[in-house]
Amino acid sequence: MNLQAKPLRLSTDSPDFEAQFKARLHWSADTDAAIEQRVAEILADVQSRGDEAVMAYTARFDRLDAKNMQALELGADELRAAFESLPPAQRSALENAAQRVRSYHEAQKKACGESWSYRDADGSLLGQKVTPLDRVGIYVPGGKAAYPSSVLMNAIPAHVAGVSEIIMVVPTPGGERNPLVLAAAHVAGVSRAFTIGGAQAIGALAYGTATVPAVDKITGPGNAYVAAAKRRVFGTVGIDMIAGPSEILVLADGTTPPDWVAMDLFSQAEHDELAQSILLCPEPAYIDRVQAEIDRLLPTMPRAEIIAASLNGRGALIHTRTMQEACEISNRIAPEHLEVSSNEPHRWEPLLRHAGAIFLGSYTSESLGDYCAGPNHVLPTSGTARFSSPLGVYDFQKRSSLIEVSAAGAQVLGPVAVILAEGEGLQAHAEAARLRLG
Amino acid sequence: MNLQAKPLRLSTDSPDFEAQFKARLHWSADTDAAIEQRVAEILADVQSRGDEAVMAYTARFDRLDAKNMQALELGADELRAAFESLPPAQRSALENAAQRVRSYHEAQKKACGESWSYRDADGSLLGQKVTPLDRVGIYVPGGKAAYPSSVLMNAIPAHVAGVSEIIMVVPTPGGERNPLVLAAAHVAGVSRAFTIGGAQAIGALAYGTATVPAVDKITGPGNAYVAAAKRRVFGTVGIDMIAGPSEILVLADGTTPPDWVAMDLFSQAEHDELAQSILLCPEPAYIDRVQAEIDRLLPTMPRAEIIAASLNGRGALIHTRTMQEACEISNRIAPEHLEVSSNEPHRWEPLLRHAGAIFLGSYTSESLGDYCAGPNHVLPTSGTARFSSPLGVYDFQKRSSLIEVSAAGAQVLGPVAVILAEGEGLQAHAEAARLRLG
Repeated sequence: MNLQAKPLRLSTDSPDFEAQFKARLHWSADTDAAIEQRVAEILADVQSRGDEAVMAYTARFDRLDAKNMQALELGADELRAAFESLPPAQRSALENAAQRVRSYHEAQKKACGESWSYRDADGSLLGQKVTPLDRVGIYVPGGKAAYPSSVLMNAIPAHVAGVSEIIMVVPTPGGERNPLVLAAAHVAGVSRAFTIGGAQAIGALAYGTATVPAVDKITGPGNAYVAAAKRRVFGTVGIDMIAGPSEILVLADGTTPPDWVAMDLFSQAEHDELAQSILLCPEPAYIDRVQAEIDRLLPTMPRAEIIAASLNGRGALIHTRTMQEACEISNRIAPEHLEVSSNEPHRWEPLLRHAGAIFLGSYTSESLGDYCAGPNHVLPTSGTARFSSPLGVYDFQKRSSLIEVSAAGAQVLGPVAVILAEGEGLQAHAEAARLRLG
Repeated sequence: MNLQAKPLRLSTDSPDFEAQFKARLHWSADTDAAIEQRVAEILADVQSRGDEAVMAYTARFDRLDAKNMQALELGADELRAAFESLPPAQRSALENAAQRVRSYHEAQKKACGESWSYRDADGSLLGQKVTPLDRVGIYVPGGKAAYPSSVLMNAIPAHVAGVSEIIMVVPTPGGERNPLVLAAAHVAGVSRAFTIGGAQAIGALAYGTATVPAVDKITGPGNAYVAAAKRRVFGTVGIDMIAGPSEILVLADGTTPPDWVAMDLFSQAEHDELAQSILLCPEPAYIDRVQAEIDRLLPTMPRAEIIAASLNGRGALIHTRTMQEACEISNRIAPEHLEVSSNEPHRWEPLLRHAGAIFLGSYTSESLGDYCAGPNHVLPTSGTARFSSPLGVYDFQKRSSLIEVSAAGAQVLGPVAVILAEGEGLQAHAEAARLRLG
């Protein structure tokens, strides 16, 4: 086997740069009408038949013939046993990562997740009260892409927010359980866990069944069926973002060892063939050195085939005129992961407006952030960092406005409300304000 | 005409309370397949033909035959002229309301919308940078339900967040422009405004045309076509909530003049026949007095027919055993507007977990909050306050995680990341962390 990984070479000073760049970025989350239809049927069935429907689909899709729903629930003791069965190094890595993720999200809660209020000159109180969601559901994929780190990243912010019940669902096709996933649920403080997946699990969480309690919000990644089901129950419950393929963009000024950069591109590419790894750099010679490292390192990688497919199909090494131009292009892409692989990262950071997470300096590999630096690894993909944010404590909280108008305040506000309400033709609104005038 | 408004009388100690209560609350946002199909076609057409499609649909649906797109744009001078054409009392009411809304949202930005970071023991920096969206679109309904206050409530938080371009779309069926809406756009600092509406306006904002710039997020209420279009472009752009009918819930301990409460119920009911007004109160005699005021005041209301239809079809006066029980029921409903009409509102407020906005004390009529107290009147409806929040500055910002791992930090984090990455079978992730070990 002579695998090659040759990301597309582009240069911003080439006349066809714009067209090639757009073609390479293009990714479309086209919905599949057949999947949509199937998911609508499954959801309707779960809504009407509850547990019975969930068990039937689990038998059919996951080959798990449960006598009753209780057989599809994992007890706290089973989660603990999974944790205790791990080698000590894995146990302590999980605990260590959980602790750092928890500290970060506690800081986040302090910084932006506390209630606030003030009184104005008339003595009226204005503010917002911040409260946790009552109950949330966390979808954890089973099978090949089973990521215990995702359990931590979804459950810990919910826990820090103060959510009192965290319900995890994780399919176990053919009964195969991933002990690391179960152990992560134990460490993260999941309240209940069910071995169900797919659209039927989303339906159970959204509508509730006799056994699975209805939740207020569902987070976590899944396949096309899960994504379609989440879209469809949105409104009945809250959902997080629907994720596209994962992406990394590396801004390099040429000061980082090129094998580090090559490996960082690999670490995105190894996720799946649609993952996207892009390097932006003003030094052509450095880009050559990164390509040379790609060539040298690829054969050493167990997932070399996926890496090669991803880099050949969607990767790019882009020569820019300057680092400033690289920053501008990065803003157009609004990448999920953005590494500023430079010895002066704080020079460039202020120029970067849109990104899920910004990794500053050459020591900050994306993988350190993915697992244990503390910030969340659930990040907006496909350019949605233009308008959305990493998963955080704020996703498990909601706000209620607080308004207490004093008797004096009502005299000041009343006449304004009366004029505006009458301008809108809403006379009861006007009258309600008028009645409070002394 | 002998109009009557008799909200359903319920009592929590009646054996059929639960069934009757659920039936009254029931509201289903069923999607209409014909609308969905039509909207999909319009969006696809706008995406491919741009301005031409927008002009064609505007001619067809709004009877506005524009020679070119420029004819569908309102200049800053036109917005200003609309403002200057208003009677002085309306001008100053708009400015006054805008000023209060701005102050509140500035306080909100300080409280929960600023960047934050810290360094851990290893000298690694962790935090989040908060940045405004670049460009947002605001949908403002035209025709009957044209609310200038909604222009303020959508545009001002965007402005306070630091959004540099705010694009308003407002249909003007038959060419009829609402001067208060245009004036509000002037006061709120809208950047550009187009007289287009419906799914075609949502498409123009989401995809961009030669004339209408593509935005990053679209907020604001609209009819079923607008709602369907917003759902469909979600992902390409951000959207706010899809709103259901408006609701008020009044918790009364019997200390507020009953005509005030009756008028507050009216002020929700007058919005439309599907609006829901509910009173919860432990004093049967007080409920009788509120009903008597409803009977007395109804004939005085210009929108009496809508009020009667809403109260008869969806209203309820519920006798509860205690105020505590009333608070529990309120939490089950998670109302959009929640009035605590009591002389000890701070006794009950801590018991209230889910609500869009909480109006404390008898002077705080919902209408004061709707127009000018300062907090936003765009609030989660249909029980979605269980998991979502009032529109705010945070809806026009997004967060990027900041991570700078020091050389020392990489030595501490690296081994943890290696173990977890290997546990997930992601060897490039592990290797990227290993390369940073000294």
